[in-house]
Amino acid sequence: MSQYWTDLVHRLDPYVPGEQPQDQQYIKLNTNESPYPPSPNVSEVLRAYSIEDLRLYPDPESVVLRKTLAQHHGLVASQVFVGNGSDEVLAHGFMAFFKRQKPLLYPDISYSFYPVYCQLYDIEFEKIPLDDNFQINCADYNRTNGGIILPNPNAPTGIALPLNAIRSLLEQSDSVVIIDEAYVDFGAESADSLIDEYDNLLVTRTFSKSRSLAGLRLGYALGHADLIEALNRVKNSFNSYPIDRLASAAAVASVKDEDYFQQCNEKIIASRTTLSQSLAALNFRVYPSSSNFVFAEHATKPAVEIYEALKQAGILVRYFKSARIDNCLRITVGSTEECQQLVEQLKRILG
Amino acid sequence: MSQYWTDLVHRLDPYVPGEQPQDQQYIKLNTNESPYPPSPNVSEVLRAYSIEDLRLYPDPESVVLRKTLAQHHGLVASQVFVGNGSDEVLAHGFMAFFKRQKPLLYPDISYSFYPVYCQLYDIEFEKIPLDDNFQINCADYNRTNGGIILPNPNAPTGIALPLNAIRSLLEQSDSVVIIDEAYVDFGAESADSLIDEYDNLLVTRTFSKSRSLAGLRLGYALGHADLIEALNRVKNSFNSYPIDRLASAAAVASVKDEDYFQQCNEKIIASRTTLSQSLAALNFRVYPSSSNFVFAEHATKPAVEIYEALKQAGILVRYFKSARIDNCLRITVGSTEECQQLVEQLKRILG
Repeated sequence: MSQYWTDLVHRLDPYVPGEQPQDQQYIKLNTNESPYPPSPNVSEVLRAYSIEDLRLYPDPESVVLRKTLAQHHGLVASQVFVGNGSDEVLAHGFMAFFKRQKPLLYPDISYSFYPVYCQLYDIEFEKIPLDDNFQINCADYNRTNGGIILPNPNAPTGIALPLNAIRSLLEQSDSVVIIDEAYVDFGAESADSLIDEYDNLLVTRTFSKSRSLAGLRLGYALGHADLIEALNRVKNSFNSYPIDRLASAAAVASVKDEDYFQQCNEKIIASRTTLSQSLAALNFRVYPSSSNFVFAEHATKPAVEIYEALKQAGILVRYFKSARIDNCLRITVGSTEECQQLVEQLKRILG
Repeated sequence: MSQYWTDLVHRLDPYVPGEQPQDQQYIKLNTNESPYPPSPNVSEVLRAYSIEDLRLYPDPESVVLRKTLAQHHGLVASQVFVGNGSDEVLAHGFMAFFKRQKPLLYPDISYSFYPVYCQLYDIEFEKIPLDDNFQINCADYNRTNGGIILPNPNAPTGIALPLNAIRSLLEQSDSVVIIDEAYVDFGAESADSLIDEYDNLLVTRTFSKSRSLAGLRLGYALGHADLIEALNRVKNSFNSYPIDRLASAAAVASVKDEDYFQQCNEKIIASRTTLSQSLAALNFRVYPSSSNFVFAEHATKPAVEIYEALKQAGILVRYFKSARIDNCLRITVGSTEECQQLVEQLKRILG
């Protein structure tokens, strides 16, 4: 507290990310990082990069990266915006599209950064409850709104929404709908195919999960050129050069290695199936995940106790002390070996 | 223009950075980059970095980097904030400290991003005119204010303010005073020594100029722990992980190589002296620079014509079409060879 803070700073209740112990002695199944390294292309490009060139600013427009992403999604560069992680992209999106007289709608169980952005930019919101099976019912969003945002698949439930549901949201809203596709590569349908059809659709993506580049901070958005222009106006009023030279080069190298990308995603999907079965056998209710994590609730033992016991055993998973989900654990799908160690520890803990 | 933009986006008039041609065929004396590569330590650390670890998020608190910077400035880590370039640090600072009922004060000739931040965060401001020699008169700031910000040395004039002047600003203001020290390493006195004395002082710095790391996007702020906490509250409501793993490692390596840092700065200061003399001999009025650029006005030939002619000759310098300075050029102090080529071309252009 300080006399020098603005009123806003006094009011803020910042986002708290999952634990990031820097000593690396834990098995980290708490922040949905990939168990696999980035594409070998990324190493190659970074090793060959002329360090001398770091004395020069990067391209403020990130043209090469935006063209590469556009090609990957069958779009053009003016439909692509890049940012310092998808959190930055989302923040700019909230400022660019959601400050209206009508409330932003999002699921009551969802990415817990959304209410923080609303606080930061003074945006009204209404949380729309998921049903008893943690499913989104699109008809619930058919009400006055100044925007809609939801992750697909949803986090932390992992449950995906089919493309026709997204389509109905877009058709019933006259505001911007942001589909936050941080986890889409693990089995959900992307709304990127709807961009040429709906001028109120913004799709956000990250390199932190399926591209194994959480350490480099890269996210992007896809949408109508007018929406991208709005994001650029905010970005250029905030920080001209958010994407550094190495991150940009690494991102391009990653996108160009489609085979490796698909292989890693397939391995994670296979591990998810095995892990979900093992958890079910241990008396967990496991929600149907289309993500690189599973969301699970044990029949008898409280989630917080399992979380603590796993931490004691050197395994971090994510526990949210939030309404409706405070008896669930979100567990990242790690490598085969990490998943095995988790299951062994759970067997011990659950006796 | 789009029906989906917020009113704010419609109103924004974004910052325009200096040209950044990506083909690299120009001699770039327009964005104040260093002519020298980053410290060899930086290459070494980046070459040795385990690319595999990029799959993991960075430390959201950037503890190692903050401790390294704290030690460098004789402070503690809680007095240090780091961001994705000093522009991001400044943006958070405007939001954290300046949204008040009283106007922010800054010089009429100054960093042209300041009014953009004011627009972005709806902050009232008053521009305080420099005197006829482009000097800041501290007594002019002795009026009702919700904050003061100024670069020291000032940009684009390059003129420095002595520490006792900064001290008087701090004493006469009951709001936060941000001293933007992007260029301080080239000959001005840093206000970092005043941080333990004034709890309303925030000093901002960048790795883009004197540390030859514009391509990696790193900036930081030094101040009382309460001010740093305010910046953290804003940052953690915007983007949890702004500093990537490679940028952080490179920054630490740079700060640890004090000798190389001093050598580069000395070379630039020496080149600045030579360049200033050459320009004076060509009938330029050269303002006394404590920066890595010179600000100069020709006695007879309009600045815009010189700018255009230099660009034709493959040399970029910065021309601002702004009141009071639209007959001046801001010229980055390049390498000895680049400065020589500039002077040769100027001789030709000026006949």
